[in-house]
Amino acid sequence: MKKMTGILVILDGLAGRPTDLNGATCLERAVTPALDRLAARGALGLMDPVAPGVRPGSDTSHLSIFGYDPQRVYTGRGAFEALGIGMDVRGGDVCFRANFATVEERDGELIVLDRRAGRLPDGKPFEEAINGIRLDDFGVEFFFRASTEHRGALVLRGPGLSPAVSETDPHAVGVPVSRAEGHEAGARRTAEIVNAFTRRAHEALRDHPLNRERARRGELPANAILLRGAAAMPHLRPVTDEYGIRGVCIAGGALYKGVARLAGLTVLDVPGATGDLKTDLRAKARAALSAREDSALIFVHIKGTDNAAHDGDAQAKRQFIERADREFFAPLLADLPWDAVHLCVSGDHTTPPAVGEHTADPVPVLFVGPAVRPDGSRAFGERAAGRGGLGRFAGRLVPQLLGYCDLGPKFGA
Amino acid sequence: MKKMTGILVILDGLAGRPTDLNGATCLERAVTPALDRLAARGALGLMDPVAPGVRPGSDTSHLSIFGYDPQRVYTGRGAFEALGIGMDVRGGDVCFRANFATVEERDGELIVLDRRAGRLPDGKPFEEAINGIRLDDFGVEFFFRASTEHRGALVLRGPGLSPAVSETDPHAVGVPVSRAEGHEAGARRTAEIVNAFTRRAHEALRDHPLNRERARRGELPANAILLRGAAAMPHLRPVTDEYGIRGVCIAGGALYKGVARLAGLTVLDVPGATGDLKTDLRAKARAALSAREDSALIFVHIKGTDNAAHDGDAQAKRQFIERADREFFAPLLADLPWDAVHLCVSGDHTTPPAVGEHTADPVPVLFVGPAVRPDGSRAFGERAAGRGGLGRFAGRLVPQLLGYCDLGPKFGA
Repeated sequence: MKKMTGILVILDGLAGRPTDLNGATCLERAVTPALDRLAARGALGLMDPVAPGVRPGSDTSHLSIFGYDPQRVYTGRGAFEALGIGMDVRGGDVCFRANFATVEERDGELIVLDRRAGRLPDGKPFEEAINGIRLDDFGVEFFFRASTEHRGALVLRGPGLSPAVSETDPHAVGVPVSRAEGHEAGARRTAEIVNAFTRRAHEALRDHPLNRERARRGELPANAILLRGAAAMPHLRPVTDEYGIRGVCIAGGALYKGVARLAGLTVLDVPGATGDLKTDLRAKARAALSAREDSALIFVHIKGTDNAAHDGDAQAKRQFIERADREFFAPLLADLPWDAVHLCVSGDHTTPPAVGEHTADPVPVLFVGPAVRPDGSRAFGERAAGRGGLGRFAGRLVPQLLGYCDLGPKFGA
Repeated sequence: MKKMTGILVILDGLAGRPTDLNGATCLERAVTPALDRLAARGALGLMDPVAPGVRPGSDTSHLSIFGYDPQRVYTGRGAFEALGIGMDVRGGDVCFRANFATVEERDGELIVLDRRAGRLPDGKPFEEAINGIRLDDFGVEFFFRASTEHRGALVLRGPGLSPAVSETDPHAVGVPVSRAEGHEAGARRTAEIVNAFTRRAHEALRDHPLNRERARRGELPANAILLRGAAAMPHLRPVTDEYGIRGVCIAGGALYKGVARLAGLTVLDVPGATGDLKTDLRAKARAALSAREDSALIFVHIKGTDNAAHDGDAQAKRQFIERADREFFAPLLADLPWDAVHLCVSGDHTTPPAVGEHTADPVPVLFVGPAVRPDGSRAFGERAAGRGGLGRFAGRLVPQLLGYCDLGPKFGA
C-alpha cells in the first residue's frame, strides 16, 4: 500500500454568516479557484467544533479537532492560557494565571497596594529574576512567563502536585496577599510551594534594578506575583502514539503549537509564519510540501481569517481567504501527489465580522483524496457544505483524516 | 448589537411517516403557506430527539431539546410524572408514583385488599385529607396530588432525602403493605418517612366521609396510598442562568410547563391555551409576540398534533397543522421584526397516526433568522428536512437557537 500523508489545514474562524457580505459569507464571496477545484474532487460536510449550539474557544475546538473530548479534558483556562502564551505545558503540570502587583511589607505580611503594579506595561524584563528563584527544596520545577501588560502565567512541574489550591490574589487592596491553602495532602504541599514561590518572588523583585528605576520615576514597583485560576493540564494520549506516526505542526500562534505538541506533533520553525494577516503563506505551503517526506500528519494553522473577523473587517477576511487560495492552496493543488495524500480544510469555529467573536454556528469541512467519495460539490463554502455528502458531525477531523489514510488502530476485532 | 430574541415552537409529535396519508406525512400533505415561506428564508435539518433509534418520551425529548443530556439527567419516571401532572418539582425532591388502595388492619398490619381501591374513578376528593398530614417531625415537606382514576404522585422535599428506598406497594393482595427500606443513612431516614406517611395516610383516609359513603354504596374504601418508583429530580442548571437571560413558556400541558420551569423559564398564563386540539392558537401567537419585549427566549408548546396522532386520526393531524399555520405561524410571519428574531420550529418526536404512539424516526427542524444560512428549501416537511442544509443532530434546539442569537458563554478561550 502506498504511504499516505494526511494534511489538515485550519483557517482560524473561517466560517461566517449570510450577514457578512450582502447575503453571503466571506468564504462564499471570496474568489477561490483552488479550493473550489479541491471541493470538486472531494466532499463537503458541516462540523460542530464542540457540539451544536456550543460557542467554542480556539483551545476547546482544537482539542476536539484532534479527537479529544473537550468536555472531558478541558480542565480550565489556566493550563491552556499558559499554552497560549507559548509555554511548554505537559500533562500533570499545575498552571496559574499570574499578575504583577505592588505590595508593601508590614509586620512580615505582604499588603497589596495595587493588583496590577500600576498597570505595568510589560513584565518581560522581570522574567529572568523570577525564573532565577529556586524551588528545588520542594523537588519541583517551575516556569514563569510574562504575557501582556501586568499578566503572566506560572507552570509548576513535579510529582504529586494538585490544582486544588486556593488563590493568592485577594482581589482587593489594603489586605494581605492570601495564603494558598489545600485540603488533601497533595494540595497542602502544592499550597506550601505556592506560598514559598510568592515569598521568594517578592524577594527577587523588591530590589530589582527596574523597580528602583520605577520608584525614581514615581511609579509603583512590580514587586509581587499574585496567582489565581489553578488548573492541571490533562494527560492526553498523543495522537502520534495512538496512530504510531510522526506528525508536524506549521503554525504561527502559540496556542495552536501548544495543542499540537500535546498531541505529539513536532512544531516546525517556519520563518515568516507569523500567525497574523501578514503571514508568509507561500512559506507555509512549501513547509507542508517538504514535511511530507517524513510525516504522516501535517497540521497547518492559518490565523489571519480570525484576526480580520475579530477586527470586524469582512472585506479583509474575504481578501485573506483569496490570498490563502492563491498562495497556499494553489501550490498544494499543483504540487501534492494526489494519489498519496488526503487533505482536510476547515475552520475551528465561526467568527462573523459583524459579531467580532466566536459564534456557535457549524463550520464547513472539505475532505479530498483518493479514499474520499466525491459528492459533486462545485465550491467550498458554508451552504455548499450544508448540502455536502459528509453530513454533520462533531470535531474529530484528525481521526477522520488519518482514517482515510488507513492509519490507526482498530477498535474491536 | 441588536437585541435578539429566540423563539422555539414545538408542535408535539409533529413528525410522521409516508404511511400517514397516501405516501406522504401529515405535515407534507398539510397546506402550510406560512411555514413554507419561513422555510424558504431559513434552513432545515433533521433532529434525533435523543439519539438515532431511541423512541423518546415527551419528557426525555424536551430535556434534550433544552440542551440537557437525558441519558444523564433522566432519573426515572417518578419525578417527571409528578411534573407532568402539574406538581412543582425541584432538584433534589424525591418523587413516587402513588396508587389509592384498599387495606384492612389486622394485628397492627395493613393488609392489601385491592391495589386500586376498586378502580377508584377519581382521587381528587381525597387530596386535601392527605395533604393535611404532617411530616414536620422529620423536617420534610411533602405534596400529594391525585391524577387519573386511582393514580397520583407524592413529592418529598427536604435535606438529605434519598430515592434509594424500596417501594411500599407489594404488587399483590392479601399481603401486608410493604415496609419501605433503605441501606445507607439518607435512604434509611427516607424509608422511615415513607413508612410514617403510609401509616398517617391510612389514618387520614380510613374515616374519611367519602369512604363512609363508598362503604354505604358497597364500594371499596380508598383508605391507603401505595408508593412505588422512587426517583429524585435532578438538579438542572437553568438555561436562563447559563445564558444570563429571561425566558418564558407558553404551553397548555403540565409536563411542558414543568420542564420549562426546571430550565428557568417563567410560565405565562395564556387563557385559551388548553394543550389540546381546541387550543386558542391566535392567543398563543399574541402571547409570543408580546413576550418579546422582555424575554430573550420564548418557548411555545402546541400539543394538538400529538393528540390527533394518538387518536389515530391523520386527517385531524393534517387539519390541525393547517390551523397552526393560519392562526399561529402566519401572525408570527407578519408581525415579528425579522432582523431581531431567530425562530426554530420542530416537533419533540414522531407520532404516526397509524401507530398512535411515539416512534424513533428523526424529526424535521426549521431555523430562520438573520444568522441562519438559507439552504434553498421551499417547504417545511420531513423529506425536505432530510435534504436540508443543517444536516442531522441530536436535540439541543435551545442552545442552537440562543447561539444564533449570540447569547451564551464561550466554552474555552
